[in-house]
Amino acid sequence: MSEVYAVILAGGQGSRFWPVSRQRRPKQFLSISASGESLFQATARRIEPMCGKDRLLVVTNVMHKPLIEEQVTYAKVIAEPLARNTAASIGLAAISLERKDPQAVMIVLPADHAVTDEAAQRKVLAEAAALAGQKPLLVTIGIKPSSPNTAYGYIKRGQKLSESGYKVGRFFEKPNEERAKKYFESGDFFWNSGQFVWRVEVILRAIEEYMPDLYQALRTIQPALGTDRQDAVVEKAFSGLESVSIDFGVLEHTRNCAVIAAPNFGWNDVGSWDAWAGHFEHDADGNLVRGQALLIDSRGCVVQGNGKMVAVLGAENLIVIDAHDATLVCPRERVQDVRKIVDELKKRGRNDLI
Amino acid sequence: MSEVYAVILAGGQGSRFWPVSRQRRPKQFLSISASGESLFQATARRIEPMCGKDRLLVVTNVMHKPLIEEQVTYAKVIAEPLARNTAASIGLAAISLERKDPQAVMIVLPADHAVTDEAAQRKVLAEAAALAGQKPLLVTIGIKPSSPNTAYGYIKRGQKLSESGYKVGRFFEKPNEERAKKYFESGDFFWNSGQFVWRVEVILRAIEEYMPDLYQALRTIQPALGTDRQDAVVEKAFSGLESVSIDFGVLEHTRNCAVIAAPNFGWNDVGSWDAWAGHFEHDADGNLVRGQALLIDSRGCVVQGNGKMVAVLGAENLIVIDAHDATLVCPRERVQDVRKIVDELKKRGRNDLI
Repeated sequence: MSEVYAVILAGGQGSRFWPVSRQRRPKQFLSISASGESLFQATARRIEPMCGKDRLLVVTNVMHKPLIEEQVTYAKVIAEPLARNTAASIGLAAISLERKDPQAVMIVLPADHAVTDEAAQRKVLAEAAALAGQKPLLVTIGIKPSSPNTAYGYIKRGQKLSESGYKVGRFFEKPNEERAKKYFESGDFFWNSGQFVWRVEVILRAIEEYMPDLYQALRTIQPALGTDRQDAVVEKAFSGLESVSIDFGVLEHTRNCAVIAAPNFGWNDVGSWDAWAGHFEHDADGNLVRGQALLIDSRGCVVQGNGKMVAVLGAENLIVIDAHDATLVCPRERVQDVRKIVDELKKRGRNDLI
Repeated sequence: MSEVYAVILAGGQGSRFWPVSRQRRPKQFLSISASGESLFQATARRIEPMCGKDRLLVVTNVMHKPLIEEQVTYAKVIAEPLARNTAASIGLAAISLERKDPQAVMIVLPADHAVTDEAAQRKVLAEAAALAGQKPLLVTIGIKPSSPNTAYGYIKRGQKLSESGYKVGRFFEKPNEERAKKYFESGDFFWNSGQFVWRVEVILRAIEEYMPDLYQALRTIQPALGTDRQDAVVEKAFSGLESVSIDFGVLEHTRNCAVIAAPNFGWNDVGSWDAWAGHFEHDADGNLVRGQALLIDSRGCVVQGNGKMVAVLGAENLIVIDAHDATLVCPRERVQDVRKIVDELKKRGRNDLI
């Protein structure tokens, strides 16, 4: 069987985790997981039994290369001088691996997700790797929904391929509440977890077909990989590219997508303060309180102090996150929009706060 | 006519203005009025045309004597080693003035109220002073309600005595919403503003009748006033007293209460963050923002920053007050309960924060 490599995508900005997540130290590098590790560290540790210390690639922004090397010393880093979304990052990793072994299986993992049942995750990834090793499939990991969540995209499973593997029926964008309920009740829909498994050759062929501009950029870049010119060449080649996700650019177009219908192994994309809070035990009033805080007559709140007393009185389902130079207050239902704050601060030239 | 003295009661704790108001520097000494003066300074300035600089007495806690002398240099201070509510403070001022002139008219004003039409306030107080100078009445200032406010006590007017003066029909505690509406619509009910006017002799006689323990304490204290023993004697005499307001201890019992049915001269007891906010212009979304703050999709909020960015997203009618070592978050409708936070911090031994 082909060798298995892990590719961790660590280029995210984490702007929904403002004010704690900042450009210089985005969410995936912060110790916000229950274990005290950073989300990135936990992701690397979880996959190590499958790829060893030798076959871990991390794609990240140039700015964060030192953070990666500090947090996971054995990681091989591919630094992007500019970010062009997941398709470009995955493409870079693929051309890098292609030199060693075009038949290598890549397990692509976002750096900022959390998993509680690690063995169950590895079992699922192993089944995906076996499937991808045998067939020219782009295998996605679908998670059995535990709720009609509207923050995730969904994958409908089609024809059965292996124990838990199916052809992809169709990808669905984040649904409204009504549709999310239908998906949840159907049993054939799975959360799109952003974890992918495929052979290098297979993904490169798909990129060539559906994203020819990216493919050409990658071919321009490949000879410069590992040389002094790498950053300059990547920058030039990427600057003309659109920012497109692998889902939108490739997966939604091909017919050779598969989905592993995985049990929910405590997976969480930690996509918002609300999702993050889901990892911790709440008190009897449904509040999650970390750091110095005092809650009175309050329910369903998430309060993170930062050395300073945060007093919350008579509030329901409110998020209050205190950082050293900024404080966020918003209802739980609005956590997806926290990035609007970052956008607005950017507009106002407040780079010190983003 | 008897000479007119102003007595400013500056002993309040301002705990509903936590986290900005603290034991060492309560609300009345903070520059939270629109003018930039402290509420106490503004109170003293407003009354000066009536009492001059020579006839201003301020009753306050010993701890705050230096603050008084710093903010209003000409004030004569009566320091209380312990607080026993308004009846005791007023009694102290009365026995102090009695030595000069038992017929003196005392205008009693809380230090922490705001007034916009100052001339109108003085006109009302002058009518009250004239009435109190002529008759043995305890004159209260009732404010024509501008809304069915449930945060104030009400006074029902009775028989007419002067241009705007009436016998008090009855005092009513803070009403529920239904009753507040009835009071508001009746036209005969006025907000009890906590401003009182009477002769020294008249209030002392009333205290003697309805609060004999306080009266006796005052008579014990009187010979020590102005001597080195004053603090010790007041402390001893006050320590055995209950904490009773002048309203509850005296006014609600006597038949010789009058009320000036005053127009609303922009009076506001600044009794909460909500009431405070009423003094400032709000933006088009009904938000009041002071200091460094960013509001997105938010309405009816009051946000006070303190050097640190406060970002509020998707909130309605929320109060966020940031101080250097603590932050308050609560819905506008709960502002009256902010003192619960102070109580809880006290219980937890967090004297550094109260």
